[in-house]
Amino acid sequence: MGSGQADGAAGRPLRAEVLRQLRSTYGPAVLETEAGSAGLYALLGQVGLLERRCRNPVLVAGTGSVAPKLKLAQALGKLDTVGLDLVAACVNELLARAALPLFCLCHLATGEVEPSVPLQIIRGVAKGCRQADCALLEGAMDSLPGPRAPGECHLVGFAVGMVERARLLDGPRAARPGDRVLGIASSGLHAGGFERAARLLVETHGLRPEEQPPELACPLGEELLRPARIYVRSVRAVLERYRVKGVVHGLARVAEGGLVGAVASAIGRRCVARLERAALPRQPVFGLIQRLGAIPDDEMFRTFNMGVGMVAVVAPFYADAAIRRIRRSGERATVIGEVAEGSGPAVELV
Amino acid sequence: MGSGQADGAAGRPLRAEVLRQLRSTYGPAVLETEAGSAGLYALLGQVGLLERRCRNPVLVAGTGSVAPKLKLAQALGKLDTVGLDLVAACVNELLARAALPLFCLCHLATGEVEPSVPLQIIRGVAKGCRQADCALLEGAMDSLPGPRAPGECHLVGFAVGMVERARLLDGPRAARPGDRVLGIASSGLHAGGFERAARLLVETHGLRPEEQPPELACPLGEELLRPARIYVRSVRAVLERYRVKGVVHGLARVAEGGLVGAVASAIGRRCVARLERAALPRQPVFGLIQRLGAIPDDEMFRTFNMGVGMVAVVAPFYADAAIRRIRRSGERATVIGEVAEGSGPAVELV
Repeated sequence: MGSGQADGAAGRPLRAEVLRQLRSTYGPAVLETEAGSAGLYALLGQVGLLERRCRNPVLVAGTGSVAPKLKLAQALGKLDTVGLDLVAACVNELLARAALPLFCLCHLATGEVEPSVPLQIIRGVAKGCRQADCALLEGAMDSLPGPRAPGECHLVGFAVGMVERARLLDGPRAARPGDRVLGIASSGLHAGGFERAARLLVETHGLRPEEQPPELACPLGEELLRPARIYVRSVRAVLERYRVKGVVHGLARVAEGGLVGAVASAIGRRCVARLERAALPRQPVFGLIQRLGAIPDDEMFRTFNMGVGMVAVVAPFYADAAIRRIRRSGERATVIGEVAEGSGPAVELV
Repeated sequence: MGSGQADGAAGRPLRAEVLRQLRSTYGPAVLETEAGSAGLYALLGQVGLLERRCRNPVLVAGTGSVAPKLKLAQALGKLDTVGLDLVAACVNELLARAALPLFCLCHLATGEVEPSVPLQIIRGVAKGCRQADCALLEGAMDSLPGPRAPGECHLVGFAVGMVERARLLDGPRAARPGDRVLGIASSGLHAGGFERAARLLVETHGLRPEEQPPELACPLGEELLRPARIYVRSVRAVLERYRVKGVVHGLARVAEGGLVGAVASAIGRRCVARLERAALPRQPVFGLIQRLGAIPDDEMFRTFNMGVGMVAVVAPFYADAAIRRIRRSGERATVIGEVAEGSGPAVELV
């Protein structure tokens, strides 16, 4: 769909490589027909999904973009990981409703760019989808009309997941006093607060990407471009083990609103949460941001993820086991706080 | 999701109006939870969809954009219909697989613009979704990072539909000699060839939007911005009447590749089609384009829709009845050609 630079004769090798990338993500549920790779996904291809597991399936859909990070990635000429960020932005949001992603699509519009630019980006998106165990059904490419800044790119992603209605997390109802708040570690900045951080460090303070400020263990550019984590496997490890809603009471992706915003949305309005600052696995980059921006602690927690990319609220009895499962699936997790009675949403930092 | 200009305090009235627009499209399948209007769509909300109608449901997903039209709409300050074009681009493509749309999402990224700009655009998208009898689950808004041309806008749409696997049209197999090719009328240019036409008329020949060339019955700007038709109701009227695959053998949206490309994709590789030029309901705008661009007839048919927005290949016995059903649902349709034996894809113009 859409007028495609990839549709002309010049775009054919590009289109072939894009199809190769899409196919690298296909499981048995994806149908490929003679009519082309239209995004076809057979729900029953998910063996038993409808009959046994899912009696009342709910589709959960969302869209995401990573414009500030893409801009930086282009400036630094390193485009192979921004696709991972895009997939993370889309699928982690589905996880917050306890839905597992079925498929993603992405749409990339560019001005005049080298063919390697869309290719690197799509490769990253496909890699992200493989990490998220979901299919990339389409990688559409379009040219931006009219005269453009050279190399202008615009990338949007879209994900569809599914959850049994009885297990759908609609957030505000489930958390109860005594619950533990688990934090699954981020890889650094992720999407929430990224733009502000990049503006502060690069524009206001003129730090160069190859520079290594004292707080960091790598050059600034590398730190900023490190892709966000994709939590599908770790969250699924917990959700599939505990199939009753009584164990996982809330999930939230840490994005706009920072860690405090995410915890508030995971616990809802009828409780408060106490977070232990000391328990947070915050990376040195947050110290750098706080120092250069002279940002109060409170504001840091309302803007950045402070080392936590995903928040889970679980019944206290299962907290340790859930953490073990998350760790076994390759992520780091820890108890970062506790839910208490109160009229929320309110998050205290102690 | 995404950093939102609509998330700040200033954006709250805008967000409220966007939600009102989304809700205007909701049917009983859309779940609204306390966790907000996350895109939740209960498949069983489609009464009987899974049990009776759909035993082996296939989701069909696609993405679309209308960048050249949006650019013109902005230049002319008339933004309320480009959303209809976006929905048409997305859902008409689902129809080509015989899938009916369940929901759409859109993502709008803007530089600095008046709040009325995103609002008008989203209102158009919501109107389109109501015409397509599908829900608009999300109208995400994002700001473009960094310095931008004033008023820059970027709009992407996604649509998900569903079809019973046994009724899925995978194109190339079904058409057979004797079949009639029906053309459902377009409203004018639609998406395919739009950019080329706008460039030719406005940039090369310097026609002004308020100008009325002799061929047209309205000013040029009005002609170019007339929204594409959304064919959900008319195609559904045919598909639901004839539930066996033996009646509708192919469907295609006329987009890139023009009318010839669409007919070729609807009939597949094992047949040829003869189209009658005289039967085409081509609008005067195509005459204007052909005259000013001195474009050969053949090329016109490979670039523009020539008055046909959607092509259906049907068994000859049912052609008249199908046309009546399409007309009753509010669109104009006519037999524009016939399928013959041959090794296609090949389309002859007679």
